[in-house]
Amino acid sequence: MNVEGTHYRTVWLGDEPGTVQIIDQRKLPFAFEIEDLRSVDNVATAIRDMHVRGAGCIGATAGYGMYLAAIEASEASDFDAVLRQRADQLIATRPTAVNLRWAVDRQLDAMAAKEWAGEKLDVAEETARAIADEDAEACRSIGEHGLELIREIAAGKSDGETIHILTHCNAGWLAFVDHGSATAPIYAAHAAGIPVHVWVDETRPRNQGARLTAWELGQEGVPHTVIADNVGGHLMQRGEVDLVITGTDRTTWTGDVANKIGTYLKALAARDNQVPFYVALPSSTFDWEIEDGVREIPIEERGGEEVSHLGGLHESGEELEVRLVPESSATANYAFDVTPARLVSGLITERGICEARGPSVRKLFPEKFREA
Amino acid sequence: MNVEGTHYRTVWLGDEPGTVQIIDQRKLPFAFEIEDLRSVDNVATAIRDMHVRGAGCIGATAGYGMYLAAIEASEASDFDAVLRQRADQLIATRPTAVNLRWAVDRQLDAMAAKEWAGEKLDVAEETARAIADEDAEACRSIGEHGLELIREIAAGKSDGETIHILTHCNAGWLAFVDHGSATAPIYAAHAAGIPVHVWVDETRPRNQGARLTAWELGQEGVPHTVIADNVGGHLMQRGEVDLVITGTDRTTWTGDVANKIGTYLKALAARDNQVPFYVALPSSTFDWEIEDGVREIPIEERGGEEVSHLGGLHESGEELEVRLVPESSATANYAFDVTPARLVSGLITERGICEARGPSVRKLFPEKFREA
Repeated sequence: MNVEGTHYRTVWLGDEPGTVQIIDQRKLPFAFEIEDLRSVDNVATAIRDMHVRGAGCIGATAGYGMYLAAIEASEASDFDAVLRQRADQLIATRPTAVNLRWAVDRQLDAMAAKEWAGEKLDVAEETARAIADEDAEACRSIGEHGLELIREIAAGKSDGETIHILTHCNAGWLAFVDHGSATAPIYAAHAAGIPVHVWVDETRPRNQGARLTAWELGQEGVPHTVIADNVGGHLMQRGEVDLVITGTDRTTWTGDVANKIGTYLKALAARDNQVPFYVALPSSTFDWEIEDGVREIPIEERGGEEVSHLGGLHESGEELEVRLVPESSATANYAFDVTPARLVSGLITERGICEARGPSVRKLFPEKFREA
Repeated sequence: MNVEGTHYRTVWLGDEPGTVQIIDQRKLPFAFEIEDLRSVDNVATAIRDMHVRGAGCIGATAGYGMYLAAIEASEASDFDAVLRQRADQLIATRPTAVNLRWAVDRQLDAMAAKEWAGEKLDVAEETARAIADEDAEACRSIGEHGLELIREIAAGKSDGETIHILTHCNAGWLAFVDHGSATAPIYAAHAAGIPVHVWVDETRPRNQGARLTAWELGQEGVPHTVIADNVGGHLMQRGEVDLVITGTDRTTWTGDVANKIGTYLKALAARDNQVPFYVALPSSTFDWEIEDGVREIPIEERGGEEVSHLGGLHESGEELEVRLVPESSATANYAFDVTPARLVSGLITERGICEARGPSVRKLFPEKFREA
């Protein structure tokens, strides 16, 4: 997508051989910095310390990281031993990220199928590019399918009337390689000339909405307004939201949606006000095993300092952190919640839109159910 | 209530004649400072610039302000002209605060009933004290009635099991003269030896929960945990909330509750998880006219800089403000929302607990309905 008019992905191979480049997302929105990753160590640090984040983006970065691992292995005496060690190092950076392990395993399989180091190196580069391209393509397709949904809403309005879409957290292109999941239909509609306006939940405690989604939309020229997470219900009561689209970190094949904490509250408000509530996801985000998401999806509890402290841009131009809570008060920090399928109007996938129900998901992805 | 072991109200007459003292709430929780108000100008500034805030506290401060106005008037040639001018000045500080006008009018009526300046001065002091005492007493009664509710919940649990109560914003003693509305039952339960733990919504954008409610509870020794506003639904799904109690800025006689933005989302989650959702209020907060709160209660829209910027304590020890949102992004800031009566389990008033329904409110406050 666009950054000051230039097209970027979140991660790509640099012109200099053996260099992976990423947008350092920790610095956004107050600074746009490209970071060169020249070793697996660099890639591991970038994933662990969240220079990159978001399921698709982590997966693609790990894919490129495995290409750097292949380069390092090809210079060592025992290719396979070095490759395996580097793979383990990458997987350990964020153990809960499904796409991370999937990308590393895919690279290991591709390289195992080749005999010579030179071939392994070639297939690693090819696979890294393929993982990134497929992620971008899946998101582009999500955009096309979601666009139809927005067209339907537009058809029910007067000509030229703005469609107001609310989103939570960042399921934008920064969380993938390009386009994003929840944002892809919005970008597609904007490109198609449909007037859209986005209500951006700031998304406490890490403020990914205020920092990342707002920046993304601004760079693409999509009109948007940042609001406190408390506001969405009021806006829906007043008829100022036509559609909610969020991403997801894991969705069961039965339609229960794990996403950034607070998503469930917006889904409740959407239901109470008859506002359609859609979840956008590439099929890699489905959990094909778990049936009851509310009971079975484990919810990560993160450090309380993300609640008690917050960083932002001081007028000095420096990014500073400030304390928000009395020193003696406890804090708790649950990162995700689960929205039950009954509150989800539908799922927007790269193969089309389906109900958030097992039989409907099965129709789109029959091959996943063959063994059941 | 307690501040480092000493009993305080939010506003009181100082030992020095003609001095009103307040806790400067802008500095909390990072500094506890008492401010002397020696003139109506001082009082007006304190109310307008939110050194004091909260319905009951504003009313009581205005009551004391009118005593200072009487002192100033008694030193002037035309008592009534000066008094009227000072009354207008106080009313103009926060024109939407119902309790402000009510307290000023009560003082004007009390003084109008006396002939001599000396008598007017005496009745003004007496009335100022009465307004504060009555506010504290109403909150104390709310605490007693709410305590019964908490006792009932405790009866359904094992002996010594903690009762988890969620609250939003600050409807604590800082918002009144003493005890608070939503917090009064919590303080009463804590004093009665019932183990309570409070989930404190940080309450973006002004963070009254994280700053004020957390500080209050900490000073009283009530166990509590500050959470992002996004978290409550997840906690309720997990059975970790036994009761929600909030305050209100205005409640219709039909039971629709205007309160700090985001209250509606918690009420929806409470309903979805069968968690009782109660609203605590002195009867001065009822709107006896409006029937449909969702449609008719005007919602204040405040400056967007409260969303885009946030203050907190920097490690240097200074309170600093930081920007959270890209410069080019719009922000919107709705201060309140309205929770429809159908989502409210009951109202805790100084006369007892009633359903959030016209007939039930009427039974407790029949005198308010006589003219209808």
